[in-house]
Amino acid sequence: MSTDCLFCRIVERAVPATVVYETDTVLAFRDIDPQAPTHVLVIPKEHHPDAATMAAADPGLAGDLLAVVGEVAKADGVDDSGYRLVFNTGADANQTVFHVHCHVLGGRHLSWPPG
Amino acid sequence: MSTDCLFCRIVERAVPATVVYETDTVLAFRDIDPQAPTHVLVIPKEHHPDAATMAAADPGLAGDLLAVVGEVAKADGVDDSGYRLVFNTGADANQTVFHVHCHVLGGRHLSWPPG
Repeated sequence: MSTDCLFCRIVERAVPATVVYETDTVLAFRDIDPQAPTHVLVIPKEHHPDAATMAAADPGLAGDLLAVVGEVAKADGVDDSGYRLVFNTGADANQTVFHVHCHVLGGRHLSWPPG
Repeated sequence: MSTDCLFCRIVERAVPATVVYETDTVLAFRDIDPQAPTHVLVIPKEHHPDAATMAAADPGLAGDLLAVVGEVAKADGVDDSGYRLVFNTGADANQTVFHVHCHVLGGRHLSWPPG
């Protein structure tokens, strides 16, 4: 946990968020600047800066996170129509919060390339 | 393993690919239609249709895959500049090969939204 980290503060419920799914290790909440009808962020409750660092430190947690993605997609009704998962790491990808988060985007056609 | 699956055939080396990294469980190779200077696909050797299905069936394998992403980013020199990971699931995301694959894109600025 980092007290300077916005997403750690959301996990602690010190900052409000629209939570859509939660397990012991993972939290999912709506992006405040949605880019599609479904735009949910799925994060581990434990602080890790990015996807690769999380996976190296705790492979099972990475699995937990992607399993929650499937539940979020079902809950939002985009599991049949399809959805895109995006993890941004570092400057070229415009990562703004350095607590790993998986964007789940769905409910509209998603073009290629992905940015 | 599915004999009808292009990526299973790449794992078997029955179809050629430019492999950049390999472990016992994961294979990484360059996309044949690159959308950025670094554009690598990271796949589990075992056949799973999409990220959520893989994570539900084998959480550790999902962790293995994301850990290999970190190695690929280092090997291609984009770990400092940044990179984007994309998993497409289903029609709205234009998933074309139904063997889960993580796109690793880097080496240029990646815009938002991601498609």
